[in-house]
Amino acid sequence: MAEDSSDHRVRTLGVLGGGQLGRMMGLAGIPLGLGFRFLDPGADACAGATGALEQAAFDDAVAARAMAGRVDAMTFDFENVPDSTARAVEEHCPLYPPPGALGACQDRLVEKTLMDELGVAVGGYHAVSGRTDLLEGVARLGYPAVLKTRRFGYDGKGQAVLRDAEDLERAWQRLGDAPLILEAFIPFAAECSLIGVRGADGDTRFWPLTRNVHDDGILALSRPGGFDSGLQQAAETTMRRLMDHFEYRGVMTIEFFVHGGALLVNEIAPRVHNSGHWTIDGAGCSQFENHVRAVAGLPLGATEMHSQALMFNWVGAFPDRAGILAVEGVHWHDYGKAPRPGRKIGHATVTADSRAELMARAERVARLAGGRFPGLIQQLD
Amino acid sequence: MAEDSSDHRVRTLGVLGGGQLGRMMGLAGIPLGLGFRFLDPGADACAGATGALEQAAFDDAVAARAMAGRVDAMTFDFENVPDSTARAVEEHCPLYPPPGALGACQDRLVEKTLMDELGVAVGGYHAVSGRTDLLEGVARLGYPAVLKTRRFGYDGKGQAVLRDAEDLERAWQRLGDAPLILEAFIPFAAECSLIGVRGADGDTRFWPLTRNVHDDGILALSRPGGFDSGLQQAAETTMRRLMDHFEYRGVMTIEFFVHGGALLVNEIAPRVHNSGHWTIDGAGCSQFENHVRAVAGLPLGATEMHSQALMFNWVGAFPDRAGILAVEGVHWHDYGKAPRPGRKIGHATVTADSRAELMARAERVARLAGGRFPGLIQQLD
Repeated sequence: MAEDSSDHRVRTLGVLGGGQLGRMMGLAGIPLGLGFRFLDPGADACAGATGALEQAAFDDAVAARAMAGRVDAMTFDFENVPDSTARAVEEHCPLYPPPGALGACQDRLVEKTLMDELGVAVGGYHAVSGRTDLLEGVARLGYPAVLKTRRFGYDGKGQAVLRDAEDLERAWQRLGDAPLILEAFIPFAAECSLIGVRGADGDTRFWPLTRNVHDDGILALSRPGGFDSGLQQAAETTMRRLMDHFEYRGVMTIEFFVHGGALLVNEIAPRVHNSGHWTIDGAGCSQFENHVRAVAGLPLGATEMHSQALMFNWVGAFPDRAGILAVEGVHWHDYGKAPRPGRKIGHATVTADSRAELMARAERVARLAGGRFPGLIQQLD
Repeated sequence: MAEDSSDHRVRTLGVLGGGQLGRMMGLAGIPLGLGFRFLDPGADACAGATGALEQAAFDDAVAARAMAGRVDAMTFDFENVPDSTARAVEEHCPLYPPPGALGACQDRLVEKTLMDELGVAVGGYHAVSGRTDLLEGVARLGYPAVLKTRRFGYDGKGQAVLRDAEDLERAWQRLGDAPLILEAFIPFAAECSLIGVRGADGDTRFWPLTRNVHDDGILALSRPGGFDSGLQQAAETTMRRLMDHFEYRGVMTIEFFVHGGALLVNEIAPRVHNSGHWTIDGAGCSQFENHVRAVAGLPLGATEMHSQALMFNWVGAFPDRAGILAVEGVHWHDYGKAPRPGRKIGHATVTADSRAELMARAERVARLAGGRFPGLIQQLD
């Protein structure tokens, strides 16, 4: 048999962050013959089930540097990697996606400015570094508008919708200490995301646009497919522009608003994303496997759907596992995390051959899961 | 949200054996929220990547008993579990599949006798406990015939084809010390296997019959589908009879010869099987996940194919990983074992939407893999 012509040096990957995204990278990468090391401040970080866990703070450059010396390449499972940590890693091994993308995606203002430079459509925004800026911004964008921290916001945290001067005062009291950005409120028809991957050789692949339904700021449901090819093409063009700009390597996610029949970028994540979890069970190659393949320098896998799919997020508590697993076509994903209000602890993806079958199964799951799911799933019909 | 009505006690599974089958059980079971412990004599047993590895001999009843006390249920990834070990485990926790099945499948003569009792078609056979038996057997079954050890044979080991008296003498010299069975040589048209699963509640599911091509006694290629529904039904009826007999729980495999348009049982394995590895990438629920679900008392998953699939076994050495991964639809499975002649170290499954596309891709993989693959794959066209 022939010699393996691939990059033999990549046998172990290091991951900054040991949450569910790292855990699912491990599950996808182990069959490729890779070993994993995770750096996380939590002693019981759930990625530990799929690799060696090293307990350290994310700003512990000494620990990051030490890990970088023991692995062949590194990546991350969250975007708030401190710049000093990224630099420490790069002294010893490559870090993918490239730190430039990390920097741009950590700050909503830098991100929006870059979109403008690249000619990508975003909603109106206004930088807010003081109360005067905020008043100017409201005068320019009008009510309603959304005030957000420039950094460290996720799952609806660090933001407030301003509908009037009273909301403005309250939001300013709460958020005014941090650098902020005011964004025009987009009365979107739907939210969707594109997940794509760029390989070591510049090859790019994209999964189908996925429609997302949030509940209280946290992703509740995702269903890929069903968008017209014009929107898919537009989304891919936007992502390719960003990927080329960063000389990207790995998986990228763009969240869009669908508004007036077109796409407006909401935000960018330089990583695998919750709205792409369905790819594990519904696509030829998952976002996790393709991310790992890209980081390890391997060719990319097929992103086509082999099944219709719909994902339910389990937040705070699990519904009845056995009851839901008894529904045909259910794939269960428990992250091994202790349940806690507002915490993402797992998901389930329903698959089927046809859209009608999918929705029939998903409606059964929604009824069994209870809570707001029976209502939320109507948005996907 | 509702309480989980499933069996809460099952959180950790113990596995006797820490090879690739255990490793793939771990990869399938971690997303279900389960933890794994593996007992294996090897310090570097490859299942260690997906759970805690405890180094002990398989006949070390003390170690098995200790593990059984730390887990909620146990299973195994090979059929030669010593009876004393099985009994030690059962003092502390349930062992699935049931030890009765284990006992019957460890001895080819017991297995054949049981088939006869259950009215299942097998080829002619003759018990050989001495030279006289062997001569009687040859007189009854005729040449060619196959002399096999009753126990511990696998991948073509412990057997010899007898075409004449000279072969008989040589085989007797080599194997005569062990209890033997002489089997009629079946000039089969094809070899295939049925993999099925029986759940805690007696529910049974079956994957499609899979055609197998061996090379030098070791599985080289497997492709599911393409058998007429009459054969599928016959195979399922046979397996259901066996499962009911044993009050089975877990995955079972039957290897058949296709001869004269009908199926003859070749042998039975009370476990997940190499010819079912394609289910990871080609079926709704894999053999590994359904085995784990059955052992953990969870409902069974869908066994339908969502994609056409064909598996290549990597024995002894890996072909060019990067070159083969560049073929669309390839899923790579490296077991993390040191390469050694004759050792199964990994597999790759090719998937596609249509059979024509599948064979085009698989032929590219066969050419890249080289060796005997380009010839062997012709048997599947």
